[in-house]
Amino acid sequence: MDVGFIGLGRMGRAMAGCLVRAGHSVRVWNRSPEAARAVEGANPVATAAEAFRGDVAVTMLADDAALRSVIVEGGLLDWAERPGLHLSMSTISVALAQDLAAIHARAGVPYVAAPVFGRPDVAETGALNIVASGEAEAIARAAPLLDAMGAKTWPFGTEPQRANAVKLAGNFMLVSAIEAMGEAAAFAEGHGVAGADLLDLLTNTLFASPVYKGYGASIAAKRYEPPGFNLRLGAKDIRLALAAAETVGVSMPFASALRDNLIEAIAQGDGDKDLAALARVVARRSGRG
Amino acid sequence: MDVGFIGLGRMGRAMAGCLVRAGHSVRVWNRSPEAARAVEGANPVATAAEAFRGDVAVTMLADDAALRSVIVEGGLLDWAERPGLHLSMSTISVALAQDLAAIHARAGVPYVAAPVFGRPDVAETGALNIVASGEAEAIARAAPLLDAMGAKTWPFGTEPQRANAVKLAGNFMLVSAIEAMGEAAAFAEGHGVAGADLLDLLTNTLFASPVYKGYGASIAAKRYEPPGFNLRLGAKDIRLALAAAETVGVSMPFASALRDNLIEAIAQGDGDKDLAALARVVARRSGRG
Amino acid sequence: MDVGFIGLGRMGRAMAGCLVRAGHSVRVWNRSPEAARAVEGANPVATAAEAFRGDVAVTMLADDAALRSVIVEGGLLDWAERPGLHLSMSTISVALAQDLAAIHARAGVPYVAAPVFGRPDVAETGALNIVASGEAEAIARAAPLLDAMGAKTWPFGTEPQRANAVKLAGNFMLVSAIEAMGEAAAFAEGHGVAGADLLDLLTNTLFASPVYKGYGASIAAKRYEPPGFNLRLGAKDIRLALAAAETVGVSMPFASALRDNLIEAIAQGDGDKDLAALARVVARRSGRG
Amino acid sequence: MDVGFIGLGRMGRAMAGCLVRAGHSVRVWNRSPEAARAVEGANPVATAAEAFRGDVAVTMLADDAALRSVIVEGGLLDWAERPGLHLSMSTISVALAQDLAAIHARAGVPYVAAPVFGRPDVAETGALNIVASGEAEAIARAAPLLDAMGAKTWPFGTEPQRANAVKLAGNFMLVSAIEAMGEAAAFAEGHGVAGADLLDLLTNTLFASPVYKGYGASIAAKRYEPPGFNLRLGAKDIRLALAAAETVGVSMPFASALRDNLIEAIAQGDGDKDLAALARVVARRSGRG
Repeated sequence: MDVGFIGLGRMGRAMAGCLVRAGHSVRVWNRSPEAARAVEGANPVATAAEAFRGDVAVTMLADDAALRSVIVEGGLLDWAERPGLHLSMSTISVALAQDLAAIHARAGVPYVAAPVFGRPDVAETGALNIVASGEAEAIARAAPLLDAMGAKTWPFGTEPQRANAVKLAGNFMLVSAIEAMGEAAAFAEGHGVAGADLLDLLTNTLFASPVYKGYGASIAAKRYEPPGFNLRLGAKDIRLALAAAETVGVSMPFASALRDNLIEAIAQGDGDKDLAALARVVARRSGRG
Repeated sequence: MDVGFIGLGRMGRAMAGCLVRAGHSVRVWNRSPEAARAVEGANPVATAAEAFRGDVAVTMLADDAALRSVIVEGGLLDWAERPGLHLSMSTISVALAQDLAAIHARAGVPYVAAPVFGRPDVAETGALNIVASGEAEAIARAAPLLDAMGAKTWPFGTEPQRANAVKLAGNFMLVSAIEAMGEAAAFAEGHGVAGADLLDLLTNTLFASPVYKGYGASIAAKRYEPPGFNLRLGAKDIRLALAAAETVGVSMPFASALRDNLIEAIAQGDGDKDLAALARVVARRSGRG
Repeated sequence: MDVGFIGLGRMGRAMAGCLVRAGHSVRVWNRSPEAARAVEGANPVATAAEAFRGDVAVTMLADDAALRSVIVEGGLLDWAERPGLHLSMSTISVALAQDLAAIHARAGVPYVAAPVFGRPDVAETGALNIVASGEAEAIARAAPLLDAMGAKTWPFGTEPQRANAVKLAGNFMLVSAIEAMGEAAAFAEGHGVAGADLLDLLTNTLFASPVYKGYGASIAAKRYEPPGFNLRLGAKDIRLALAAAETVGVSMPFASALRDNLIEAIAQGDGDKDLAALARVVARRSGRG
Repeated sequence: MDVGFIGLGRMGRAMAGCLVRAGHSVRVWNRSPEAARAVEGANPVATAAEAFRGDVAVTMLADDAALRSVIVEGGLLDWAERPGLHLSMSTISVALAQDLAAIHARAGVPYVAAPVFGRPDVAETGALNIVASGEAEAIARAAPLLDAMGAKTWPFGTEPQRANAVKLAGNFMLVSAIEAMGEAAAFAEGHGVAGADLLDLLTNTLFASPVYKGYGASIAAKRYEPPGFNLRLGAKDIRLALAAAETVGVSMPFASALRDNLIEAIAQGDGDKDLAALARVVARRSGRG
């Protein structure tokens, strides 16, 4: 397929690489052009508009502001050569997802929300879990790309914001898991048990899952660099989850506690470290940080 | 081995049954004698003292009060015919664990703390994860029993309270996982996504572990009876974790949030339901309960 | 002075009335024109632009969106006949306060932020406490108006957003006081003590201050209508405080707890009731609501 | 009246002094005898039993453990020469208050619970607010003593634990006020407003009450020594409030947040400072501590 790919951070580069290796023709664009040159086999283009056309345009940007700036304020939907489908894979707010769905409908460009679960190393191997919402026909057309980037695509109906809600719910659970491990480790250490020993037990038995094993190992080793997923981005996702929950009347006490602790972690200088550094907050408070 | 087993709730009965099937001679005692008769192949005895002797005495009681009442106030350590080893498997406070260790040391009875992870159905099959603290020689002597009841025994050093701290840390993580799923499901439902669909995705990918799968299925199906592990007991464990954390200067914001929500769940009538019913709290608050 | 007054909700009407009674010539404008006719002795005008000129233009609008819509999007700062001073008295975000200060500086219109403390009945009598930030000369020019509306004006330096930060801090303390009384009353009632008796003691001794006496009486009487200050507006202010705190790296655990409880109160149908209805949240959770 | 007074900490000494000055004959006892000699005009006695007799015995001890040790474990209620009335003024748990009421009833000694509000300097001048529960006739008999120690006695019915519940509710509100001021000050300082200026405004207007003025001044001046009421005792009272709330199914989110922050304050070395030092917690978290 003729694909344009916009947004070449660590995740985007890995995902675009999968598309190239699956045999698609991929034009890539990034705000800072060095990143575009780093995708072997892809064709760097000079403007976002040159990427936002063809069979499918994929976007994988850092946040609401970036996506809104490139697509909406950049006026890409007003061009003649619009893509046959916009596969929107960024982690964005539910509110923006709703706006974008409406804007694309008016512009006549099919829109599929398809945020992903998985860190860059998972993206490299095309093994992401992809959550997709949009018209069934549009999702079907995107399937060859989704299959190239993901181990599995999980459909969540036609309303695009649903996929984004699912993504935020999942990231909330992920950050909660880290906080729970951090508190458990601080508690155990207070009682003379090495956090690493505690987490070795629990992440190999009751909690033997990728998230717990991965972040548990980082917490156990107090290894927070290089960041797989940085703490500031985690804070952003919790903020988006809280905002989206409030609009539907749902209060989330764990998310509120996470928000407080993430703000503290950033204030203490850990914003650019791996999200696992959240575990330092409770340890520091107890004087063992 | 010649074993006495005290405490035949759902967990105790299942564990005593494993010992019988492994060929041990097991005297069993329970405060209400009907339970004792329910362990096929075991020998019910009329008093706790008759059970608290032999090669190893195992205790599996509901809480601090029960264990303190039977062992300490019951004066069992003052008898001539004390057991060669006390294998103490109840989930109790760290403070009581320390007291018991000191009391047993004075009485000259080796003491091994060996709380377990796993629900009654896991106990039936002898597949518990057992956390053991105590003198290495004593743990080694108990090994045939531990192997009969558990899939694996995880050693945590010689100070008996450490095993109990590990157990409380693990249960804290378990209750945290339930709360996180409950909040995520309420959030998702507010956005039109069935909680069951969300949890199906997440518990088969990032969170594909026994705790998440088991409790996730209950939350998805809103199935809270019969209780595998009742909510009131979960509340007790969080209370014990908070108390033990406070003694070592550790604050646990998630545990505090759990405490509040568990109190609310009990006030709303769910104390005897399965711990998964904790998920009802945030749903009810949002008007979707 | 020749004054324009924009925004005639319950607070604005009362404040504009004070200006009229102090002998100022007051043009008034409100989005829905009936409110404008309700200010006796004032001169209703047909457009916001007609009000936004003269010696001083006062704005007292409900929130960021209203103020931004009228002043910024309405293009009022681009007109030739701009006022000699904009006295901005709405409770708005710190971020918007900063934006407005910059926009006014570019337009050459002196800007004074002057949010107020006091409910409508206090505003009627010109007894508000006014927090003012801006150039000293500009505040001095506005003094006759400030004196007509307030018992006292508290200066907080030249940076306009500081007055807004102070206002948000004060409202946060106010909502915290209500929550604390609500929790204390629920606790006391659980022990057979009437909440009214408890609050009678405490609000006449340790907590004998206007906020505690006023809201304490409402909580004691479970009287939540008519709203003096409605709960939804209180929720807005806590949201603004949390957002402004986050930008400067401050986490506020009480504010986070308030946010959760306010969301629940709104979800349970109390958004249009008096803020005192926040006390119902903990009572309801305990089954005594 | 012939009075025995047990417990001569800073509060007890001041209160016993008031009784002496009001013309009562006062025997005083304290575990460490130096304190007993410090009450001018009183008659130090060598044992608690010598103090626990006469018309009225007053107890003012530090906590549950001290009161239980002296009165219950000390066997004072088994003596022949028991007092005509026990006026129990310590801040203790609701559970112990209930136990003591039952024990005194069996021993035939009238029991009045009469905890107090006010710091040592207020106690010196006999201006405490006293909360009294017990049989009306017994409270009436104690009136001359209550009047000597307090500005006013607030009756709360016949069940003794109610006065203790009221005391805990009041202290919870007091600690909440400190936390709210601490968060507000940290927030304001983040925005360039001196905490002292903010608190000067608020504690002279909306929050012009003794608690806010007193603790507000300490927070503004960052003056935490000498302690009027030390942080560790404040933590004890919040723990008692949480425990008593749980027994009646009431969850208190503010109290839970306070508990976490008080644990952190103690872990960071501020346990022996004035309770106002609680304000340091949020400031420290934001990097401005």
